[in-house]
Amino acid sequence: MPHFLNSCDDGFEAAFAALLTMKREDAPDVDAAVAAIIAEVRARGDDAVIELTRRFDRLELTPATIAFSEAEIAAECAKVGAEDRAALELAAGRIRAYHERQMPADARWTDAAGAELGWRWGPVSAAGLYVPGGLASYPSSVLMNAIPARVAGVGRLVIACPTPGGAVNPLVLMAARLAGVDTVYRIGGAQAIAALAYGTGTIAPVDKITGPGNAYVAAAKRRVFGRVGIDMIAGPSEILVIADRDNDPDWIALDLLSQAEHDESAQSILVTDDADFGRAVAAAVDRRLETLERRAIAGASWRDYGAVIVVRDLAEAAALSNRIAPEHLELCVADPEALAAETVHAGAIFLGHWTPEAIGDYVGGPNHVLPTARSARFSSGLSVMDFLKRTTLAKMTPQALAAIGPAAERLATSESLQAHGLSVRARLDRLNR
Amino acid sequence: MPHFLNSCDDGFEAAFAALLTMKREDAPDVDAAVAAIIAEVRARGDDAVIELTRRFDRLELTPATIAFSEAEIAAECAKVGAEDRAALELAAGRIRAYHERQMPADARWTDAAGAELGWRWGPVSAAGLYVPGGLASYPSSVLMNAIPARVAGVGRLVIACPTPGGAVNPLVLMAARLAGVDTVYRIGGAQAIAALAYGTGTIAPVDKITGPGNAYVAAAKRRVFGRVGIDMIAGPSEILVIADRDNDPDWIALDLLSQAEHDESAQSILVTDDADFGRAVAAAVDRRLETLERRAIAGASWRDYGAVIVVRDLAEAAALSNRIAPEHLELCVADPEALAAETVHAGAIFLGHWTPEAIGDYVGGPNHVLPTARSARFSSGLSVMDFLKRTTLAKMTPQALAAIGPAAERLATSESLQAHGLSVRARLDRLNR
Repeated sequence: MPHFLNSCDDGFEAAFAALLTMKREDAPDVDAAVAAIIAEVRARGDDAVIELTRRFDRLELTPATIAFSEAEIAAECAKVGAEDRAALELAAGRIRAYHERQMPADARWTDAAGAELGWRWGPVSAAGLYVPGGLASYPSSVLMNAIPARVAGVGRLVIACPTPGGAVNPLVLMAARLAGVDTVYRIGGAQAIAALAYGTGTIAPVDKITGPGNAYVAAAKRRVFGRVGIDMIAGPSEILVIADRDNDPDWIALDLLSQAEHDESAQSILVTDDADFGRAVAAAVDRRLETLERRAIAGASWRDYGAVIVVRDLAEAAALSNRIAPEHLELCVADPEALAAETVHAGAIFLGHWTPEAIGDYVGGPNHVLPTARSARFSSGLSVMDFLKRTTLAKMTPQALAAIGPAAERLATSESLQAHGLSVRARLDRLNR
Repeated sequence: MPHFLNSCDDGFEAAFAALLTMKREDAPDVDAAVAAIIAEVRARGDDAVIELTRRFDRLELTPATIAFSEAEIAAECAKVGAEDRAALELAAGRIRAYHERQMPADARWTDAAGAELGWRWGPVSAAGLYVPGGLASYPSSVLMNAIPARVAGVGRLVIACPTPGGAVNPLVLMAARLAGVDTVYRIGGAQAIAALAYGTGTIAPVDKITGPGNAYVAAAKRRVFGRVGIDMIAGPSEILVIADRDNDPDWIALDLLSQAEHDESAQSILVTDDADFGRAVAAAVDRRLETLERRAIAGASWRDYGAVIVVRDLAEAAALSNRIAPEHLELCVADPEALAAETVHAGAIFLGHWTPEAIGDYVGGPNHVLPTARSARFSSGLSVMDFLKRTTLAKMTPQALAAIGPAAERLATSESLQAHGLSVRARLDRLNR
């Protein structure tokens, strides 16, 4: 049974607050183990990576086989059926088109004081994408991480993907090829993150590491942050659906289940202004759960973290949504645009009846790497910006320095930074000669 | 004596690599103490903050005096002289004008498949800026943090600034007022970061925390990251000056010293294609060090971490600069634009002879909060983007879903995410009826 809440009930505020702060993830403390792995890789490079891969992935590598060869990649890609390949190509094309629009513009101008100012964007030189092995090895995530990097203009783009016992998902290699990845390494875990951050004999270090992973990967990313850039540490997936009565309960049930099936820690919430509709959706979820392949996972998620919240009106729905700041927000109402204007904190919004969240996971175009755990209050999904950095530019003329330099000198003096002031003064004195 | 390197020397590569990896910061391990302070503040709110402020800042607060009153701020601002005030106003106006140009645009379009796509930017609801007390209490940093937040449209903007023994820098309060800060709290250290992140009886929690601080503040920011957004953890300041022989050695010496005087861990490097000029700058540094107020600090920085690197030509200078990825890069050469095009990794570039770095610290317009410790390879200075987040938007029509839905269904199947596929299929089936 999911949580049923009604905003008219006495205990609502306490129940909603409890839902908001509910701890869904019990991350094991692997930090000490990860620190040791990183130290090993820094000290012994390829030897350590090979040894750790033998231990954790039961796979025997040599420096020559750490990366897939071109022939190996071609052989795996040949196993991909035409329909899967076409679907990946359609997705890649749409993701590329969306992200190309995100490229920010450089700027340069001269202001009233005669100062030339501006900024310039540039790509990171090299990026590494982590792709989990096994069940969570999603080709769609390869596209979502690699394409923004390529659009940004990253020079060298590599993937680290463990292949336990040598097993690899051909679709992952096909996605890597479609996205233009340069090299795919058969390594995973904290040892892969360490190798990407610090380099080894065969693996050149990168400047930025993105992509999801297990507790070891997350802890390793936290530890190498600063040495390299990282993306967010993603938590379990979430969806909030705001729906009025004019919806097919079965559609909404499937949308809720499409998050629940990811993970027992996923959270699916329906907010509706119609209690009968809420009950109908819950009933539809139960019916679908009977036949769903991942019913054990989806059922546990829905039972433990799922919720149906009945509100007085859509304004109240928007207010609750803003407190939740959901990763995915589906607006299945008559005027989704009006409601979108009120729901200000969300990673991605899906508007109207014909936009199931799953479209955004694969082919919509926007990125599916999105802020979880209420972090949409202050952060954004993955984008080309994650693979770019900005350099600010300033160029004074003698006239511009004469106009604004004395103020800089004054402030430097007030902060007791004498050399700062003198570096301006020395130049002003030349002008006054 | 700073390090003298020449790229023609045999041992150059090793010496340069050593300079690059030189550890300049010995951060004390205060993590356990910080964890305890955060737990205290979460458990006991204002009481804990008041107690910790008594202990660390020798200041007796009550819930009513945790924040400065309007009258107190007005009284402090009245102490600021006209010249200081005018300088702050000039700086604030220029910083605001620069950052207003950074505001990113929303986008919305309909693509060939009939899908409506786009994104929307919005400000974080509340931000907290940390301002150190004592010597490092820089009014310029108040402007550099607060103005981008206000330009971004942050709803509630507060400052936490410790006032040891009750002492406050009137210029800090004046800068806060000019920047439009709503509230200034008299608290500091890890307890201030905890209060901003989790809230207390009198301090409402914020969504984003920025600003520099000591080891306790840095450790606390790391710990609350995820609960709130944070800016980068800044390391000691750095400057790289690339200068040819046609420069006044004294100007360049002052530019180098304006970083060195910040901190004994600061690093100032000159790269020049003329060995005689390099020696002349080093001699000028020594002369200036005799009279500089902060000569103990600046002298230690220059002796331990300063460097003069002689290269064959400016192309080599650019290549070394890209390996250093400096926070501040000054290009004092005949054609600074051409050299800027080659120096791709830098937080901020100062072009030509008339742009001492100190201009950028105060009145240039660009932000002075910049990536240190080689992180300009993958990150950018503070900007309005740090106070904004992006929500992606997607809206399918039945026709658009018919066009791209089958590919999503196919990919969901290949990833064994059945409910994802069904959520699309249920809608496609309706269309096909």
